[in-house]
Amino acid sequence: MRGLMQDRPLTLPHVFHRAEQLFGHKTLVTATANGRTRTTIADWAGRVRRLATALDELGLTADGRVGTFCWNTDRHLELYMAAPCTGRVLHTLNIRLFPEQLVYIVEHAEDEIVFVDRSLLPLLVPLIDKMPTVRRYIVIDDGADVPVPDDDRFGDYEELLAASEPFSGRFRVDDENSAAAMCYTSGTTGNPKGVVYSHRSSVLHSYFTMAADGPALSERDTILPVVPMFHANAWGLPYGALMAGSNLVFPGPNMTPDAILDLLSSEKVTVTGGVPTIWMGALPKLAEHDLSSLRTILCGGSAVPRSLSEAYRKAIGVPMLQAWGMTETSPIATMGVLHSEHDALDDDAKADIRARQGVPVPLVELRIVDPESGEEQPWDDRATGEVQAAGPWIASEYYRGEGGGAQFTEDGWLRTGDVATVDPSGYVRLVDRTKDLVKSGGEWISSVELENEIMAHPAVAEAAVIGIPHEKWVERPLACVVVKPGESVTQEELLEFLTPRVAKWWLPDAVEFIDEVPKTSVGKFSKKTLRDKFSGYRIDAPDVTGG
Amino acid sequence: MRGLMQDRPLTLPHVFHRAEQLFGHKTLVTATANGRTRTTIADWAGRVRRLATALDELGLTADGRVGTFCWNTDRHLELYMAAPCTGRVLHTLNIRLFPEQLVYIVEHAEDEIVFVDRSLLPLLVPLIDKMPTVRRYIVIDDGADVPVPDDDRFGDYEELLAASEPFSGRFRVDDENSAAAMCYTSGTTGNPKGVVYSHRSSVLHSYFTMAADGPALSERDTILPVVPMFHANAWGLPYGALMAGSNLVFPGPNMTPDAILDLLSSEKVTVTGGVPTIWMGALPKLAEHDLSSLRTILCGGSAVPRSLSEAYRKAIGVPMLQAWGMTETSPIATMGVLHSEHDALDDDAKADIRARQGVPVPLVELRIVDPESGEEQPWDDRATGEVQAAGPWIASEYYRGEGGGAQFTEDGWLRTGDVATVDPSGYVRLVDRTKDLVKSGGEWISSVELENEIMAHPAVAEAAVIGIPHEKWVERPLACVVVKPGESVTQEELLEFLTPRVAKWWLPDAVEFIDEVPKTSVGKFSKKTLRDKFSGYRIDAPDVTGG
Repeated sequence: MRGLMQDRPLTLPHVFHRAEQLFGHKTLVTATANGRTRTTIADWAGRVRRLATALDELGLTADGRVGTFCWNTDRHLELYMAAPCTGRVLHTLNIRLFPEQLVYIVEHAEDEIVFVDRSLLPLLVPLIDKMPTVRRYIVIDDGADVPVPDDDRFGDYEELLAASEPFSGRFRVDDENSAAAMCYTSGTTGNPKGVVYSHRSSVLHSYFTMAADGPALSERDTILPVVPMFHANAWGLPYGALMAGSNLVFPGPNMTPDAILDLLSSEKVTVTGGVPTIWMGALPKLAEHDLSSLRTILCGGSAVPRSLSEAYRKAIGVPMLQAWGMTETSPIATMGVLHSEHDALDDDAKADIRARQGVPVPLVELRIVDPESGEEQPWDDRATGEVQAAGPWIASEYYRGEGGGAQFTEDGWLRTGDVATVDPSGYVRLVDRTKDLVKSGGEWISSVELENEIMAHPAVAEAAVIGIPHEKWVERPLACVVVKPGESVTQEELLEFLTPRVAKWWLPDAVEFIDEVPKTSVGKFSKKTLRDKFSGYRIDAPDVTGG
Repeated sequence: MRGLMQDRPLTLPHVFHRAEQLFGHKTLVTATANGRTRTTIADWAGRVRRLATALDELGLTADGRVGTFCWNTDRHLELYMAAPCTGRVLHTLNIRLFPEQLVYIVEHAEDEIVFVDRSLLPLLVPLIDKMPTVRRYIVIDDGADVPVPDDDRFGDYEELLAASEPFSGRFRVDDENSAAAMCYTSGTTGNPKGVVYSHRSSVLHSYFTMAADGPALSERDTILPVVPMFHANAWGLPYGALMAGSNLVFPGPNMTPDAILDLLSSEKVTVTGGVPTIWMGALPKLAEHDLSSLRTILCGGSAVPRSLSEAYRKAIGVPMLQAWGMTETSPIATMGVLHSEHDALDDDAKADIRARQGVPVPLVELRIVDPESGEEQPWDDRATGEVQAAGPWIASEYYRGEGGGAQFTEDGWLRTGDVATVDPSGYVRLVDRTKDLVKSGGEWISSVELENEIMAHPAVAEAAVIGIPHEKWVERPLACVVVKPGESVTQEELLEFLTPRVAKWWLPDAVEFIDEVPKTSVGKFSKKTLRDKFSGYRIDAPDVTGG
């Protein structure tokens, strides 16, 4: 027996028309090189309607990929809507990718057009002859003093809009499962892989951003997404804000702590979100700004240090609200909101909970699975396993089958590659990446936990632990350590320091001192580079280990 | 191009398993004839699993209708989950229906089984021989001193559960558009009509109940649904609470103001919801109870008097949060939350906004349409029109095509039958029911507004206005007035009272004094009965009117 409810697809046109109809008076602020621009949702919506017509007149195919190479701005938000509302697919390009990665993903996605902020032309222009699918580049003038190539392929965004009549009537996308947007993951191995969001997944994820036990976006909020709009929908904040009717503030190109803090303060921002690095940089300057309007700082992208969250709580009364996810999960899969059962805890114990990644959000299901046996592990906060995720905004495959399905289970769950424990209340605690676990004598050593212990040594600036193949124990840990300038420490001193802190069989078999830990294009430790560097490395101390 | 997101249906099994996995320690309290029962979600979930097996063992068909004739209790919540999670269709029966209506809907829905609270047996037992589709009646013993028939068709709920093994594993419903529940509208004309909710509509509506600008249900809440669970999913509160992880408190059979207030106070309820009548009854006793935990009182089902909301705001600091909808809209379509633009208003002006029905909630679209011309009307707070609604939790048709589609437009929107204005910010203000509008000389007279003005006279207890056919003006208003005991008023006095308050052409052509306004089974004015009573009534004063 079927339900007798209207067959109304969950599509982004609903979000657009809702914002236009109910929230036309709400504001969009964008920081530019020359100050701040202010507009209203009503004016923005009119521009979206012009842009929609322009996309048609440019001759894009019905579901053509629309690349954006842009900072967080109100104009980027125009593209966020006009592309999917006309049936095209928004493809946000990560401006921090290596040139060869950028060329690869533009070609792989077959982008037909790229909208680019003028200040970013120097990164893009040298590559355009390697991007044959792109027929047009539309330059969004952000005031940067950068020349625009004298090339027929280049056009001006404002001229384009001025020359286009606004689309009238309602946008219509009939199939909620059609593609709305795509974003490539910058994996550390293999080629970047494309994640393709549907209208359905985008609308459902946006709905979540309004949930009381989530970001709780409301008409009363003013939201500043520090997280780039080329990262997984900026965590859903732009679409969520439009659905909720919030004001939005965009930081534009200036992502310095001073600029961000100044915006947060002067625009009375209530909700913001960004990676830990941003908030670490802003920490020393908090006292110089009035952040009394701020109620929520979303933080994710990598594990949020407990100390960072506590520093914010003590300084401004707002700890980090940790979220966990990835491009493949739209991205929010867990949210570290405290539950009523934690009310009786003291501040320290609450900080421990906040340092976890949180509980699965509604419509997302998680399980942890032993990476070797494939067996599901209990939620006892001791057993570890790879986190696998299912839900309507979790990827089912990569664009064009990239990766051959290896990252998806037979029953259709995403293998996230993150290793975690889960406590009986469902709070996830990440301990490692699957590929970074060190397998020693049938047991797993968490490279991340070992690194944290090594980095607790006062002379250590950075440490990365990798597994080295070993005849008897399969793998044994090698610690790659960067010493702080002006400090010194020996292998023996480090091992002595670690001895009371970790199990005996976790002790690294060797320590190599290096100048710096190699990083990926998005700033994460590149253990692949380290493993390449130390391939063939030989460890000769089998007898110190033991299960 | 298709999105590449997991094909995970939006189904109630997700809500069940989420509650069981994350919120097992949360509590369900039910008031009974003998005190209060307390259980946990974990224990409740175990009983749902037993009930699921029992439904199979009872031989119900795969999508059989499962009738419930119950108060609001934790056991009713077991049925709310076990029926749809096993593919059956929960059919909540309104215990206040007239017997012939009840017999009609049980037969029309083809209920195969009915679960009935023991205290309600006296209403049901006399009818069972007229309900041939029902093979079994399962009695839920609520402690009432009422005999159970000595009849093979009757069984005991606790015995049934005790004899059934708990279902193990995960419930699975593959098609999110399959039916989850049904509820008949008790229209004042024609037969009751069945609304069939899908899993998709139920999950999406539940998601809305967590929205910050909606009920904002959270893990921190304790929720008491006063609105009966046989009315349109109890406004989504039970499923929403399970999704959010809230505690729930059920009032059971004792719906007196004292009992409700005592529960709100002693169980530290944070969110409750019910029709205005309930809150009117409780108003005089507010001071006797500590309601400091209460943050939200949802109110709907009929227009919420401004004075009622203000009385609560002044007494306990919590005005009514008005919601509007109907069985066909799952039910929440608008929510009267104040927006930031209202912050600068004074208390009186805020109360005026709260007295409106509010703005369309995310995923619901509304329009107002002139009932004659079919033209969409502007949102200028002056133009009136029938409210039409679209969205994934709005009905597309009635069960078995009842009503012949007259209540749905050609483009698939629901004709709600309510007439409203909408202000430029999207706030709906109901002015009448379409069928109660009085059409005079090409203009509409709102019977509701006219009644409100008449009832403002100190001698008037109740007033209902109906249209009487008229040769020249098509219709003219007749006021049917109930005078307060011990008071008196004449037609001339009333018209004189009204003259400065309404347009001249709105003045009723006649006043008839009656003993009481006839009511429907759910307590609303039955204008149909009045129209029958005054059919053939003749009005002789054409000249007082004028367009």
